[in-house]
Amino acid sequence: MCPTEPGEWPRLNIELINTGSELMLGRVLNRHQQWLCRQLADHGYVVGRQTAVSDAAGDIRQVVGEALSRAQLVITTGGLGPTSDDLTREAVADLFGVPLVEDTYTVARLEAWFAARNRTMPERVRIQAMVPKGAEVWANEHGTAPGLAIPAPSAGVGPSTPPWLVMLPGPTRELHPMVREQLLPWLRHRFPSVAPYVSVTLRSIAVPESAMQERIEPALGPWIARGLEVGYCAHPGEVDVRLAARGHEARAIVRAGEDVVRERVGTHIYGTEDETLEQAVVGLLAHQGRTVAVAESCTGGRLASRITDVPGASAVFVGGVVSYSNALKEGLLGVSPVTLATHGAVSEAVAREMAAGARSRLDADFALAITGIAGPAGGTADKPVGTVFIALAEAGGVAVVRHLNRFEREVFKHMTSQQALEMLRQRLLPGSPTP
Amino acid sequence: MCPTEPGEWPRLNIELINTGSELMLGRVLNRHQQWLCRQLADHGYVVGRQTAVSDAAGDIRQVVGEALSRAQLVITTGGLGPTSDDLTREAVADLFGVPLVEDTYTVARLEAWFAARNRTMPERVRIQAMVPKGAEVWANEHGTAPGLAIPAPSAGVGPSTPPWLVMLPGPTRELHPMVREQLLPWLRHRFPSVAPYVSVTLRSIAVPESAMQERIEPALGPWIARGLEVGYCAHPGEVDVRLAARGHEARAIVRAGEDVVRERVGTHIYGTEDETLEQAVVGLLAHQGRTVAVAESCTGGRLASRITDVPGASAVFVGGVVSYSNALKEGLLGVSPVTLATHGAVSEAVAREMAAGARSRLDADFALAITGIAGPAGGTADKPVGTVFIALAEAGGVAVVRHLNRFEREVFKHMTSQQALEMLRQRLLPGSPTP
Repeated sequence: MCPTEPGEWPRLNIELINTGSELMLGRVLNRHQQWLCRQLADHGYVVGRQTAVSDAAGDIRQVVGEALSRAQLVITTGGLGPTSDDLTREAVADLFGVPLVEDTYTVARLEAWFAARNRTMPERVRIQAMVPKGAEVWANEHGTAPGLAIPAPSAGVGPSTPPWLVMLPGPTRELHPMVREQLLPWLRHRFPSVAPYVSVTLRSIAVPESAMQERIEPALGPWIARGLEVGYCAHPGEVDVRLAARGHEARAIVRAGEDVVRERVGTHIYGTEDETLEQAVVGLLAHQGRTVAVAESCTGGRLASRITDVPGASAVFVGGVVSYSNALKEGLLGVSPVTLATHGAVSEAVAREMAAGARSRLDADFALAITGIAGPAGGTADKPVGTVFIALAEAGGVAVVRHLNRFEREVFKHMTSQQALEMLRQRLLPGSPTP
Repeated sequence: MCPTEPGEWPRLNIELINTGSELMLGRVLNRHQQWLCRQLADHGYVVGRQTAVSDAAGDIRQVVGEALSRAQLVITTGGLGPTSDDLTREAVADLFGVPLVEDTYTVARLEAWFAARNRTMPERVRIQAMVPKGAEVWANEHGTAPGLAIPAPSAGVGPSTPPWLVMLPGPTRELHPMVREQLLPWLRHRFPSVAPYVSVTLRSIAVPESAMQERIEPALGPWIARGLEVGYCAHPGEVDVRLAARGHEARAIVRAGEDVVRERVGTHIYGTEDETLEQAVVGLLAHQGRTVAVAESCTGGRLASRITDVPGASAVFVGGVVSYSNALKEGLLGVSPVTLATHGAVSEAVAREMAAGARSRLDADFALAITGIAGPAGGTADKPVGTVFIALAEAGGVAVVRHLNRFEREVFKHMTSQQALEMLRQRLLPGSPTP
C-alpha cells in the first residue's frame, strides 16, 4: 500500500493528531507527542507526521480527514472526555457520515466505575458511551472514556484496504496503559507485515555536531549503503548519534554501525538512549565504591541538584557547599584569605583550595569545585565573563581546568556543571591516569 | 484574507512547522512548539495548526507547501544548520522554484564568528550562507545559521497578498532571541491590521484550579460578556490565570479583570507573565535589603539552584549547604547528634536546628532548611515516603511546617523547593507577622 523501493520492507504510514487549545496557546508541553512517538518507534512504527490543533470540531474534522487521505493509520489523542470541549467523537461521526450509537458495554462500565467510588454518575458522563457506528471499543481500565478504533469509509475505488483511525483518551494515566496494553498488541495483530526494526542512540559529549559527522560518516558509508540510517541531535555540549535499520539484517547492521562509532568517538560516548551524564557518573562511582562532594560558586547548586536527581545518588554523594561569598569559601571550605586576596575568587588557585577543602571537610574520595563569572557583570580583560575554573581533588592531588562559557545564565549553569561531571567521568574511566 | 465574523477584527492565520527526525522518533520533547506558540499567543497571534515532520526534504517540501496553501504566515524551526540532515533551505528553494544564492553578509559573519573563537571555519559551515533567492536574511546573534523570511511565489490569481514563510534556527539559544528581537517586531510591522490585543497572565500558588475558577468566574461575568477571555493552566501546586481581550477596549477590560482576580485571590498571586516564584522571592529580599541562606537534604541543591537562577541573586543569597549525610548536618550545620539520634534526620527538631545552624554559620537574615523522605524507600508508618519538614529561621525564632509530597523524584524536588520559597515569600509580604 505505501510506496516501497525494491527490496525494502513496507513501512506503515502513521500520522498522529493531538488536540487541545492549551497546546496551541503554548500553555503546556505536548508530552503525549514525544511519549507516543517514542513507544511506536521503539516497536518499529515511525510516525511520519504529527499535527496539533485546538479543540474546535471543524479543525479536528479537517485534520483527521486530511491525515486519512495520506496515511494507513491515524491516531488521535484527547477530545473523548465528558466536557463541552471534547469534540472528537462528534467530529469523526460527522466526517465518516455515521451516527453516534450508545455502547451498552461502556454504559455498564461507567455505571460500575461510579458505583465502585460511591458517587452518582453525572448525566454528562454518559456521552462517553456514544461511539461512531462501526467502531471497535477499547475498555479504559484507568478512567471513563474508552478508546475507539474504526476503519475509514471505503472510497470504493478498488481493493485497497481503508485506513484505520484510532482515538485515544487524553489523560496521561489513561493514555499510557491503553497504548501499552491495547494499541501495541492491536498493531502487531493488524499490521504483521511491518519490517523488524532496530535503533540505538549513542550519547556523546565534547564533540561538535559537524566534527562528529566528519569523524564517523566516511567509515559508516558501507553500512549506510546497506540500509543504516544515521541521525544527529545536538544539545548544549552534546550530540546524540542515532543508528537505525530495518529488515532481517537490522540488528547486525546497527551493531556494526555502533562498533564504528564507538571506535571513532571512543570515551566521548557516555551512555545510550535516555541515560544522562549524571547517571553515568553516579553509576561509575557506585561501581567503584567511591564518593564525591561538591563546592559550587557560579553554578549555585546546579551540580549538586543534577547529581541528586539520580535515584541512588545518596550512596555516592555526601553533600555539597554553595559558597557564593568569599566568607563562605573561607568559613566552610577553608580557602585561605591570602589566596582570595592575591588571585581573586575566580582563579585557578581558589578552585584548587575549594576542591581540596571540600574533599577533606566533607570527607569524600573526590571533590569537584567550580568558580567562575556567570555575568552579565563582573568580567575583566584578563578574566572575561564566562571564565570558569573547575577543580577535581582526590587523594593524589588536584587537577584544574579553565573554560570560557559565554552563555546566558541558564545555559551557563548547565554547561559548566556538564564540564565538571565530564571531568570526573573521564577520571573514573578504566585506564585514566592519576594526577 | 482569513475568515472573520462581522464586527470582529481579522486574525492572522498562522501555522507552525517543526522539523526533526528526533521529534518523530520521540527522542526529545517539542519545547519549541510550546515556547513559540506561547510567545505568539501572548502577542495576539494564535497558531492555528502545528505540524512536525522528520528531516526529509520531500516531507518538508510537502508540509510547507500545504501550510502555505492555507495560512498567511508559516513558521518553520530547524533544518538550517550545517549537517546533511539540515534540508529546509533546499526544500524551500525547490518548492518555490528559486535557486540558492550565497549571502555575502552571512559569509562575512560566519568568518568573523569563527575568527572570534580562534577556530578554523569548516567548509561545511559555509552552506549556512546559501539562501533561497528573494529571502530576507535575519542575522543570528547567537549562532551561525541566519533566519530567513520569504514571500511565497504569487499564484497569479488576483490581488491577494502571498503568504510569508519564516524559517528559524533550531538551537534554543539561537531561536529564542531571534523570536524576541526579530520575529515579533517583524510581525507587528508586517501585519499591523491585526486587532489590538492585550493579555496578562497572573501566576498563583496554593489554590487548586477548580477552587480558583469558583472564586473568580462569577465576579468576572460582566467582563466576560464584554469580551474578556479567561484561561487556566495548572502546574504542580500552581495555577496560571490568563486574561485576554481584543479591540480598542482591550486594555481597560483586561485591567478590570485583573483587579477582580487580585481582589479575590490576594497574596496567592506571586507574579505575572513568566515571573517565577524564585524571582518574586529574590525581588522581595533585594527590596528589603535582606539575605538568605539554605540548608537542604532531600532537595539536594535544587532550592539553591533555583534561587541562583535569578540574575542578581548574589546580592541576597549568601550560600547553602547540601547535607545528605548526618555527619554533614552535624559538621557543617551544627545539628546536635542527640537530636539526630532522638528524632531522626527527618523530623521537626532536625529541620529547626538545620535552619538555625545555617542562619548563624552562613550569616544571613533568613535561613530555609529542608529535610524529608523523597523515596522510593525510607518511609515508615509514622513518616511515610513524601514526608517533608521545612524550617524558616530568622532573628526572632524558627518556624517549621510539615508537608506530605507524594510525587516522583523530579516533581518531589520541585514541589518541596516551591513550598520553601513560598514560606519565605509569605514572610516577606507587607504586614506578615513575625514568629
